[in-house]
Amino acid sequence: MSDPLRPSTRTAAVAADLLGRLREAPPLTHCITNTVVTGFTANVLLAIGAAPAMVDIAGEARLFAAAASGLLVNLGTPTPEQRAAATEAVAGADAAGTPWVLDPVAIGVLPVRTALAYDLLAQRPPAIRGNASEILALAGLSSGGRGVDATDAPEAALGAAADLASTWGSVVAVSGAVDLITDGESVVRIANGDPLLTRVTGGGCALGAVMAAFLGAARDSETVTHLDAVSSATLVYTLAAEHASATASGPGTFAVALLDALADIEPAEIAAEARVTETALTAEAAR
Amino acid sequence: MSDPLRPSTRTAAVAADLLGRLREAPPLTHCITNTVVTGFTANVLLAIGAAPAMVDIAGEARLFAAAASGLLVNLGTPTPEQRAAATEAVAGADAAGTPWVLDPVAIGVLPVRTALAYDLLAQRPPAIRGNASEILALAGLSSGGRGVDATDAPEAALGAAADLASTWGSVVAVSGAVDLITDGESVVRIANGDPLLTRVTGGGCALGAVMAAFLGAARDSETVTHLDAVSSATLVYTLAAEHASATASGPGTFAVALLDALADIEPAEIAAEARVTETALTAEAAR
Amino acid sequence: MSDPLRPSTRTAAVAADLLGRLREAPPLTHCITNTVVTGFTANVLLAIGAAPAMVDIAGEARLFAAAASGLLVNLGTPTPEQRAAATEAVAGADAAGTPWVLDPVAIGVLPVRTALAYDLLAQRPPAIRGNASEILALAGLSSGGRGVDATDAPEAALGAAADLASTWGSVVAVSGAVDLITDGESVVRIANGDPLLTRVTGGGCALGAVMAAFLGAARDSETVTHLDAVSSATLVYTLAAEHASATASGPGTFAVALLDALADIEPAEIAAEARVTETALTAEAAR
Repeated sequence: MSDPLRPSTRTAAVAADLLGRLREAPPLTHCITNTVVTGFTANVLLAIGAAPAMVDIAGEARLFAAAASGLLVNLGTPTPEQRAAATEAVAGADAAGTPWVLDPVAIGVLPVRTALAYDLLAQRPPAIRGNASEILALAGLSSGGRGVDATDAPEAALGAAADLASTWGSVVAVSGAVDLITDGESVVRIANGDPLLTRVTGGGCALGAVMAAFLGAARDSETVTHLDAVSSATLVYTLAAEHASATASGPGTFAVALLDALADIEPAEIAAEARVTETALTAEAAR
Repeated sequence: MSDPLRPSTRTAAVAADLLGRLREAPPLTHCITNTVVTGFTANVLLAIGAAPAMVDIAGEARLFAAAASGLLVNLGTPTPEQRAAATEAVAGADAAGTPWVLDPVAIGVLPVRTALAYDLLAQRPPAIRGNASEILALAGLSSGGRGVDATDAPEAALGAAADLASTWGSVVAVSGAVDLITDGESVVRIANGDPLLTRVTGGGCALGAVMAAFLGAARDSETVTHLDAVSSATLVYTLAAEHASATASGPGTFAVALLDALADIEPAEIAAEARVTETALTAEAAR
Repeated sequence: MSDPLRPSTRTAAVAADLLGRLREAPPLTHCITNTVVTGFTANVLLAIGAAPAMVDIAGEARLFAAAASGLLVNLGTPTPEQRAAATEAVAGADAAGTPWVLDPVAIGVLPVRTALAYDLLAQRPPAIRGNASEILALAGLSSGGRGVDATDAPEAALGAAADLASTWGSVVAVSGAVDLITDGESVVRIANGDPLLTRVTGGGCALGAVMAAFLGAARDSETVTHLDAVSSATLVYTLAAEHASATASGPGTFAVALLDALADIEPAEIAAEARVTETALTAEAAR
C-alpha cells in the first residue's frame, strides 16, 4: 500500500480503551453460530473477557437478544431452528437497540443461507463480517467462493463493501491478509494477524463474535462509533494472533496459544504493535 | 468457613475407590448436552477413563439411556429434537434404574428450557448440578442469571439446594469457588479447583458428565451413596483442575492440561490434596 | 502377523504422492458429521491441507456434494435434518461422481441410524469406515458395540468387511491397533498409529474425513484406486499420530500435537516409517 495513508493512532487508542472497558464490565454476547465453531467461539469470548451465551432456539432468541449487550448471527450451519432463532434474535436486537453482526458464511451458491442473508441484510445489520467472496456475494456481485475459502483478495471487495455500508447503514469488515473495515465514508486497514488464523476452523467466525462483544462494550460511549468498535475488535484479535504465532509450532498449538494470548493481551501493548491506517474513501477513489 | 466442620476423609477415600473402579470398568456415559461443549465433554470423559456416547435424537435416546451406566441431561441448547430426546432418555433411565444428572443451564429467564427443567425435575433426578443462579431458579427463588454466569455465591443457594434435595430426593450440587453438594441432610463442601475453570466453556458442563460417570461407577456398590458419588466426581475433577493450572499459562493451555491431568490423576493422590468437609444441615441451621 | 505378507512399498509411495497433490490443490471436502466432532474434524482437514466444509442442511447438501471433491457421511448424531441432508448429499455425490465415505457410527442397536446406514449402503458407498463392531453390524453379523467402542478386534471383522466390499463395490476400512482396508480382493494392513487416538473424541471420525479428502485428491488419477486412496489416508493419519504421541503428555496435548503433526508431515518421510502390508484375500483364505 503506497497510498497516502495516515497511521491511525485513533484506532489503537480506542481499541485499548474498549478492551479495558470490556474486562471491567464483560458484555453479554449472544451468539447464534455454526455447530463447527461454537466451542471455539465461546472460548475466544471467555478468553478475552466477555460473557458468551449461545442461545439459538426459537422461543428464546428474541428475548435473549433484547437483554444482551451484543449479538452475532453467523450463517454457517443454518438449520431450520437456527434460521427461526436468527430471525427472532434480530427482531429482539432491533427492538432493544442491541448491536449485531451478520456473518454470511459461504453465501452465494448455497441457496438456503443466501436467502436468509438477504432477509437479514434488509434489517440493516450494524456490522457485517465476511471474506471477500462473501461480501461480493452479499452485494450481488459474485456467486461466492468455495465455502469459507477466501478466493478473492479483500481489496477486490472494497467497492462492494462500501456500497453495502452506504446502502444499509452498516460497518462492513472484509477479512484477509490485510483486513478492511469501512462505513462507506472511510476505510480502516489492519495489517496485523497471522496466516495460521486460516488454518484453524473458526478463526474468522470467532472474530465476528469478538466484534459483537466490542460493539457491546462501546454501547455506553457517545464518541466510539461502530467503525471504531469493529476495527478495535479486529486489531485486538489479530494482535493476539501474532502473539500466539510466536509460540506456536503448527495450527494445533496456535489455536491454544491464541486463547492464552487473548487473555493475556494488555491495553497498553496495542499502540506500539498496531499496523493500522485510515483513509477517506474519496481519497481512495481519486487514486 | 470458620464453622465446626469435620474434614471428610470419607469423601476422599470413596473418590479414590470410585476412580479406580471407573477405570477398571469404564461406565458407558450417555450425554444429552449442548452443542457448545459436546466435544470437550466427550474428551473429559475419555480422559478420566469413562466411555462417552452422545445420543441425542428421538427414537434412540430411551433405548440408550436404559442400557447406559449413567446419563447427563444438560439444557444448554435445547432444540426441539433434544427436548424430545431428553424426555425419552429420562423415561428410559427411570425404567432401567440408570442414575441421571440434570444440569438446568441458564434457566430462569429463558422460557423453553425453564419449562423443560421443571418437567424433568418432576421426574426426580438422582442428581442436579448448576451454579447458584440456576439452583435458585430451579427452586423458584430467582429469575436466574446472565446465561451461565454465576451471579450468586454458592452459599446463597444452600437453602434452595437443600429444599430441592428434600422435595425431589435428589443430590444437589452448586458450583462455585467452594462447591456445595447436599442431599438435604448433610452438606459436602469442596474447596479444590481453580478460577481458570470459569474461563473455559464447558468447564462446569463437563463436570455434570463426570458426575454421571461416577454415579454409573457406583451402581454396583451398596455402601456408596449418590451424595458420595457426586462429591467424588467433583473432588477428582477439581483436583485435576489444580494440577492443570500448575502448568497452564492461560485458558487455552489450561483446557488442554485439564484433559492430561484427568488422565493422569491417581487414586492414591486424592487424600493428601483434598480440601473437603461434611456437615449435618442441622448443625448448619444452628449457626 | 506371521503371515507371508509382502511389505507394501506401493502404499507408501502412493500416500506420499497423494499428500503432495492434496497440498497443491486442496480438495473441497464436504462433511456431514456428528456435532461432537465437527470442530476437530474441520481442524484435522485444515491441518493436513484440505478445504473442509460442513454443509449439513436439506436444500444445500445435494448441490454442495455435487461440487465437492469428496464427501463424508458420518452417522454419529443423525437428527432429522442431518438424515435428510445425508440422503440429499449422497444423491448429489452419485450424480456428479464425487467419491464418498460412509461412517456408520454406533449402528447395530440404535434403530434410527441403523436404518439410515442400510439405506445409504444400498447407494454403494465408494468407501466405508468403522470399528469392527460397526462393520459387523453393517454386514448384519452383530448387534453392534457400546457406542463408538471397538468391542471386537479388527481381524474378527475381516470376513464381514470383504463381503461388504464385494457386495457393494466399496473399499472397507476397519479401525483398530492394526487397521485393515480391503476392496474384497486384497487386504492392506497398517500397523502405524497410537493408542492415544482412542482417548480423543473424533480420533476415528476425523480419519473418515481424511479418507474423503484423499479420495478427492485422487480423482484425477487413472492409476490410484480407491483402495490406494483410503489406505494412504490411513497411513498418513496414523503416522502423524505417532509423531504427535512423541511429544504428548496425555490425551489433551496429544490432540493438539496431532494437528501440528498433520500440518508438518512431509511426503518424503512416509516410506521409512510405514508399517504396511498388502495380501491377496485368496492367500488369506488359504492360511
